Amino acid sequence: MAHARIENALLDTLGHCAAGSPPKLAAAVRHAVFPGGARIRPQLTLAVARACGDDQPALADAAAVAVELLHCASLVHDDLPCFDDATLRRGQASVHSAYGERLAVLAGDALIVIAFQALARAAAAAPERLPALLDTVALGVGMPCGIVAGQAWECEPRVSLHEYQRQKTGALFAAATMAGAQAAGGDAEPWRALGERLGEAYQVADDIRDVLANPEWLGKPIGRDVALGRPSIASEQGLPSALRQFQRLVTGAADAVPTCRGAPLLRALVRSEAERLVPRAMRQASLQAVA
Amino acid sequence: MAHARIENALLDTLGHCAAGSPPKLAAAVRHAVFPGGARIRPQLTLAVARACGDDQPALADAAAVAVELLHCASLVHDDLPCFDDATLRRGQASVHSAYGERLAVLAGDALIVIAFQALARAAAAAPERLPALLDTVALGVGMPCGIVAGQAWECEPRVSLHEYQRQKTGALFAAATMAGAQAAGGDAEPWRALGERLGEAYQVADDIRDVLANPEWLGKPIGRDVALGRPSIASEQGLPSALRQFQRLVTGAADAVPTCRGAPLLRALVRSEAERLVPRAMRQASLQAVA
Repeated sequence: MAHARIENALLDTLGHCAAGSPPKLAAAVRHAVFPGGARIRPQLTLAVARACGDDQPALADAAAVAVELLHCASLVHDDLPCFDDATLRRGQASVHSAYGERLAVLAGDALIVIAFQALARAAAAAPERLPALLDTVALGVGMPCGIVAGQAWECEPRVSLHEYQRQKTGALFAAATMAGAQAAGGDAEPWRALGERLGEAYQVADDIRDVLANPEWLGKPIGRDVALGRPSIASEQGLPSALRQFQRLVTGAADAVPTCRGAPLLRALVRSEAERLVPRAMRQASLQAVA
Repeated sequence: MAHARIENALLDTLGHCAAGSPPKLAAAVRHAVFPGGARIRPQLTLAVARACGDDQPALADAAAVAVELLHCASLVHDDLPCFDDATLRRGQASVHSAYGERLAVLAGDALIVIAFQALARAAAAAPERLPALLDTVALGVGMPCGIVAGQAWECEPRVSLHEYQRQKTGALFAAATMAGAQAAGGDAEPWRALGERLGEAYQVADDIRDVLANPEWLGKPIGRDVALGRPSIASEQGLPSALRQFQRLVTGAADAVPTCRGAPLLRALVRSEAERLVPRAMRQASLQAVA
């Protein structure tokens, strides 16, 4: 249900921009967004909007779309040769592999613009919500503490692992939950902790899977993040510590859901997402393997 | 006066984002914006806002800032090795030359985000103006017909020269004039033609200067645009035709200024900008040289 709502909102948004656009740019943008991953960020946005009454569903849809498009934009630019030089993404060619580097730069740029434009276009019926809502989304992706800033810490000689992860992943997760509240006319602040903890859990899960993907690295501080010189909790503190932190963050995220009608649904979403990220069986097996 | 207002608004906006940001990213963003070029787009925005009453000066400032930051973002990404591979911009090192390719990609991304965020932050006192204003600015830079789309036409096998120039330059000029009107609570549409014609004149002037910069190319269809495989009116139709078109566009821009109290000032701005772009003496000398 939420999944169909998100896919339709994304399709609608890109459809409006594609007519008359250079065909390869439109195709590259579409390639960056479909087929998607788990769409966890827009799911969070919609779940929080529902918990807050969802009285402006078009604005909640736009907030979900904006957060997802900004995530997709960051992946496209992150895959570029000057960053990760990744040829694959979500099982298909990365945008620059399929369409070339120039169109990948432009598709990422276009996605950022479309994200904010989608918010503005959906806000005609409740314009008084737009300034704070847009600021929240912008803070999740820009300077000083959003995704772009997080990514830029990779170019600095000294990085705080916690700050790096909080900005590169946590900031957009926090924007996702807070924007859901604001789109529905609710207060954003009570929803920050849920997003931040889930975002941090997500980043730790990424580090864990990076190590687990290569069984011979189990428990050893090595992996793709290390090869790329990226800060990683699994490589810095070891796998058992990372697994314990993951569990703490997931529990903390569930505990951070404010008391409201939709709380049980949101806690269930947190638990199912944790299971998808690092299945419980895998967590236990990994801890035994390094014991 | 307008110049100081623009520089201060730009400084303020970047200052708010820089605190706590990765230092190199903040420096790269600043490098992309200061020292500036002629700041013609934000000047237009403020001039039109004044002609429409300028009753929300902070919003007009933000519109001017947004348009200029989006212009700067497009220059940073345009200079990247995969596009123009330009080592110099405005007489100093381009952003990627000074800070590396990764920070140049990120600085461009950050500038796009900051542009829209600046609009949102200034709109608290008049939120009902924000949806249409933001949409106007987004249309000037995004898909289907903004700067990013214009740039993407360079990756297509067939391009209409007119559409290419209209999107790559005219669209943001049109957004600059229209946003000025909307920031002041005015109607945008009457201000479109002024921006579009001035933008087109600007692009033709660029083509002309590209040819004139190398005297031995005078009147010959060759130059940097040609070397890069870019559509150029000066190379496609010859210098005399380009010079005549420039004159037509400048006259058309001045004629497009709607009847209003600020009209004489705006027409004077158009004329002084034309003189700055291609001085009348140079136009006459060039026409004589190829006669």
